[in-house]
Order: sequence, then structure tokens, then C-alpha cells
Amino acid sequence: METSFSMNGGDGPNSYTQNSKIQKEGNDQAKASLSNSIQEKLIIQNHSSAEKPQVFSIADLGCSVGPNTFACVNTIIEAVRLKFQTHGSESILPEFHVFFNDHVANDFNTLFRSLPLNREYMAAGVPGSFCGRLFPKASMNLMHSAFALHWLTKIPEELTDKESPAWNKGRITYVGSSNDVIEAYTAQFLRDMEDFFTARTVELVNNGLLAILILCRPEGTKPSESTIMQGFDRLGHAFTEMAKEGLLSEALVDSFNLPIFIPNASEVKKVVSSIQHLSIEKLEEIYYPTKIVTHEDARVSSLHIRAAMEGLIRQHFGNKIIDEIFKRFIRKLHEFSKTPRHLQDGILFLLVKCNAIP
Amino acid sequence: METSFSMNGGDGPNSYTQNSKIQKEGNDQAKASLSNSIQEKLIIQNHSSAEKPQVFSIADLGCSVGPNTFACVNTIIEAVRLKFQTHGSESILPEFHVFFNDHVANDFNTLFRSLPLNREYMAAGVPGSFCGRLFPKASMNLMHSAFALHWLTKIPEELTDKESPAWNKGRITYVGSSNDVIEAYTAQFLRDMEDFFTARTVELVNNGLLAILILCRPEGTKPSESTIMQGFDRLGHAFTEMAKEGLLSEALVDSFNLPIFIPNASEVKKVVSSIQHLSIEKLEEIYYPTKIVTHEDARVSSLHIRAAMEGLIRQHFGNKIIDEIFKRFIRKLHEFSKTPRHLQDGILFLLVKCNAIP
Repeated sequence: METSFSMNGGDGPNSYTQNSKIQKEGNDQAKASLSNSIQEKLIIQNHSSAEKPQVFSIADLGCSVGPNTFACVNTIIEAVRLKFQTHGSESILPEFHVFFNDHVANDFNTLFRSLPLNREYMAAGVPGSFCGRLFPKASMNLMHSAFALHWLTKIPEELTDKESPAWNKGRITYVGSSNDVIEAYTAQFLRDMEDFFTARTVELVNNGLLAILILCRPEGTKPSESTIMQGFDRLGHAFTEMAKEGLLSEALVDSFNLPIFIPNASEVKKVVSSIQHLSIEKLEEIYYPTKIVTHEDARVSSLHIRAAMEGLIRQHFGNKIIDEIFKRFIRKLHEFSKTPRHLQDGILFLLVKCNAIP
Repeated sequence: METSFSMNGGDGPNSYTQNSKIQKEGNDQAKASLSNSIQEKLIIQNHSSAEKPQVFSIADLGCSVGPNTFACVNTIIEAVRLKFQTHGSESILPEFHVFFNDHVANDFNTLFRSLPLNREYMAAGVPGSFCGRLFPKASMNLMHSAFALHWLTKIPEELTDKESPAWNKGRITYVGSSNDVIEAYTAQFLRDMEDFFTARTVELVNNGLLAILILCRPEGTKPSESTIMQGFDRLGHAFTEMAKEGLLSEALVDSFNLPIFIPNASEVKKVVSSIQHLSIEKLEEIYYPTKIVTHEDARVSSLHIRAAMEGLIRQHFGNKIIDEIFKRFIRKLHEFSKTPRHLQDGILFLLVKCNAIP
């Protein structure tokens, strides 16, 4: 069964709205890449005036509840406008139609209430998994997805099957797991990516662009060397600690796995290259120093992770343990930040072009 | 200031989802008109195969949270399909893109969770007032609105101005009010309708259709003779009764007016005819017996009205009086149902075609 999860809704202290500054930092780092690559690679078709008015359709896939999605959309629209202007097509500047997509469980009510009042585009929300079709054929000009593709659509069944060599007992990530576990996670990620990109080849217009920001580990490292995954793994330590203290059942921990995989650039490249009609126009790895140093840093990071994972954890473990688990996690994350690491994860910026489906 | 209100969200006992059977009955009565008129009036353009794939875009304006909106969309899609088939264009059957629109305050989360799983269309939600632009130019093929256009975007200011001859003291509707009040209400309705239809002339493609279901009073009756408004007016009686008993302040009642106007066919026709590029293709008044006879009927009706108006009343009067006011309203509605009436309100079905904006 596919898992459907969402960032914490509303705008309270544990909401994604209040706890998405780390993702904002990532977006800020990649803003210039997004803007420049659009201006460089966008192809403006010359339309005769007899044709119907131009609409430029944009989608943000995995938008969550804001505010990051609105900033990204603004960057995209500014870049497209600039391209029209430098192309001498200012007079035929299109109207912008922007589609905000996320899982059905996403808090679209908060998203809609937060829409900028002075926006210069028409807005719509689109519920559903971006690993399937969301839009009509050849209807989208530019699609964007930031910090969303590391979420798997589901946990491979073998991870919770006691009879399988890929049974992931006592762990909630693949850090320190057997090769069978790592292979099962990798295979699921590649399947999801294939579904994601295949759906986009149908939805994008000829020469349509797809801009992706995804967490990535450095080239040449193994999946379990991802520093982000290692951080998430400390959440697993908090679970096993509570199980040992008899505060929750071991079986419940054994049957829980985070549906997250952090790839490297080659893994992503390989998927995209295998899909007809897509070409990689830009690929850029961005590394910037992370900031978990003090206990306060760990608290802020844990709040971000809580905003993203609380729903999922509640579904599996119930409501009671949530506060305790994240209290322990802060400590574990702080401990983790003190262990020496050579290579840190970063983000991968990818611009993909879709060529005509005949 | 524009008022933004919405039907009760969620799916609890007071929700619109659970209390929209009266609207469903209206939709059922008009279903054949909607279906037949689409098949009769829809113009299918012949596209060369070289052109981009066909998308047929549909919007439901004022969709609320379901389930009625899904039934209407199905009726529309079935009718369009049938038209393509009888036109011999089955092979180029378009993909359907359906946009569900309502105020920002609408419960889109519930709407999205209720989307039929077996739907054969791509779905999107669009927040905002339908008296303004919601979609790009010439992007919509067929737009629909049922039981929504009687809601005014705002209460004319003079109704709450003590110095104005249109001060509507002691009343929450225009039933039994002065001519000044009725004129202010009528003028607001006509302005809103003009804005609504003008926005649609921009958004609809050439030959695009607009199907409207709106509550209406019989031809030849005055605004205050609307039986539906007279029913709503009994809610005002409950308010003034409570004010007399000292349970709420008289000033609070004086400053509250329901933003609702029930037109007759001529009033609607006059607005549509005054707008360039629109032509009325069908106009049908549908009358069917209403069913408030027993106390239980009154209770069911009051629940429907509560699902629609509770948010608005809470905003103005606060939370405390809600249950009491609707308890009193049931009794008053039951009393009202026993008064003899000759002409009852019905519904107006209108099919409008949009002709090219050069």
C-alpha cells in the first residue's frame, strides 16, 4: 500500500510553516541556479497573434503548506518574465497559471489562506502523488520540485517481513543495515523516480522544463554514508532506547521504517537518462556548511524533522510517545553533531528538458 | 469589505457534506436540462492531428465540499462524452481537467479527501471569489455554478448606516423592509452578477458554455415575496426574539444582514443580456413542491440552512448563541410552513454561450 503523508499543517509551533527554514536555506542556495538556468534554457515559441492567448503553466510538486513554495514560484515567474523581455517578447507576456501539488493529506486550507495577496498569477491546488499523472497531456510549461523526491511512495514490503533477508529489525533507516535492506530501499527509490519522470514526460509541453532540487550525498559515497540519513537514524536510536525501557513495543519499532532515501548525483542521472524524451540540461551539486553545533541548533533541526515526520510517526506509534521521542531525539542529534565527519550531504540541482512525444 | 464565508466543513452532523440533500434535489431536478442542453449546444471544433492534444477544461464555481459537486461534474463529463460520440469524434475524446472553486475559507481538505477515487479526470482546487478572475484567458470550455449565485459578495454599506434611509433596523433580510433596503440589495446583486459574468467572458474559450442553477422566485413577484427569503427571514425573528429577551444585543441584530438575494428570471436575463459576448441559449424555470410539513421537515431544513450560514453567524454573533438560535429557528420555520402561500420559489436553469472576444 502506498503511504500518504504530509508535512504538519496549520501555522502552530510544530507546523511546517514555522519549521521550514532549513529548506528555505537550501532554496536560497539554489535560487541563482534556478533563475539562471531558466533564462538560459527556456525556449519561447513565436506565436502568431491569431492564436489563442498564451498561458504559461507552472507546477510546484510537493509544495507542502508554504511559505517556501511561494518564494520558489516567484523566482520562476521573475526568470520567465526576464526571458520574455530579453527575447523581445515583452508584449506577448503570458498569463501565469500556477498549480500547487502535494499529497491529499497536505493542509491545502492553510496553503490557500497563505497565498500572497499581491500574486500576479492564477493559483490552483492539486491533490495527489506526483509519482502518477496529475495534469493533462502536454499542458505544463515548467515544473518544479524542491526537497520532496527523497520521500518514497512506500516502504518495500520485504523490510518488515521477518522471513526476508531484507528484514530491517531494530532500525528505522538503512544506515548500518544489511546490503539486502539497502538494495530494497535503492530499488524503491529508482522505481519512484522512474514513475515521477515518466509522468512528467506526458504532462510537459515540447521543450518544457523540469527543475529539481533534491537532497544528495557526495559522489562516491555509499547510501549509508549519507550524513542526513545518519541524522535521521538517531531518531531510530531514540525509538530503540524507549523500547528497551519498556515504553513501547519492540515489534512496533521493527515494523517501522522511514520512507526516505538520499541518492547521489549518478543515481539520479541514471534514472533520468533511461527515460525517453528527457535530457539533462544542468546538473549542479551544492554543498554548504550545516549548522548543528549547539543544543539549540539540534532543537531547531529536530523541530524541522518533526514538522515533516510527525504525521507518519503518529500513524504508526499513536499520539502518546510523540513529545518524548522528539525530546530524546534532540539530545541524540546533538551528540551526533559532535562526531567527526569528512563529507557532508548537500543538494542536487537538476534541470531537465522534455522533447516532443510524437 | 467583501465578506468571505463558506459552507460548514468536515463531515460532522452540522457539515454541508451531511446537509446538502436539498441542493442535491435541486441538482437532480435540473440534471436532464444540464445534460440535454450540453449535448444540444456544445460545439466541437475539428482539430488537425498536428495540433496539441485536446484538453477539455471544466470548472464548478462555488463547489463547496461535496458531494453534490462531484455528481454535477459527472453529469457534465457524461454529456460531453456523448456529444463527442454522436459527433463521430470519439477517437479524439479529450482529457478532462476539472477545477473546483470556492472561497478561500472553504474546506478544500475535506473536498480533496472526498474526490471520487475512480474519477476519470484530473482535479484541481481553486480558491477565490468567482466575482473576479480565477482562470487564464480563454482557458475554460465549460463552467458550471449551482446554488451559489444568490450569495452576495458583501452587504451594501447603507444597510447598516443609521443615517441612511436604507438602514435595515431589526431585520436580517429584505422581507418586509423599505424600498430603499430592497433597492440596495437588488443593486448589489446586479453588480455581483455583472462581475461574475464579465469574468467568465474572459475565461471561456470561443463557444464556451456556462451553465447556471440559481434559486429564483416566480416571474411577476416582488423581491420580498420570495418564499425562500421569507423562510430565511424567520431566522431574523429568532434573533429579534432573543434580543427582546435580553439574550443578545439589539445593536448586534441591527448590524447583521444576510448577504443573500433571490432574483427572478427577468433580473438574471437582464444582466446577462447587458454583457457583450454572451448569449442565452437556454432558460428554464423549474418548480417542484417543497416539503416542509412536519416538525422533522423543519429540523432537516434548518440543518441545511445552518450548514450554509453558521460560519457567517458565528463571525458576527460569536459562538454562544448558535445552538439556541437554530433551536428557535426550527420552530419558526415550522410555523412558517403552515402559512398559506400561492407561489413558491423554484430554480432557474440558464445556459449561456460565450462568443469570441476579438
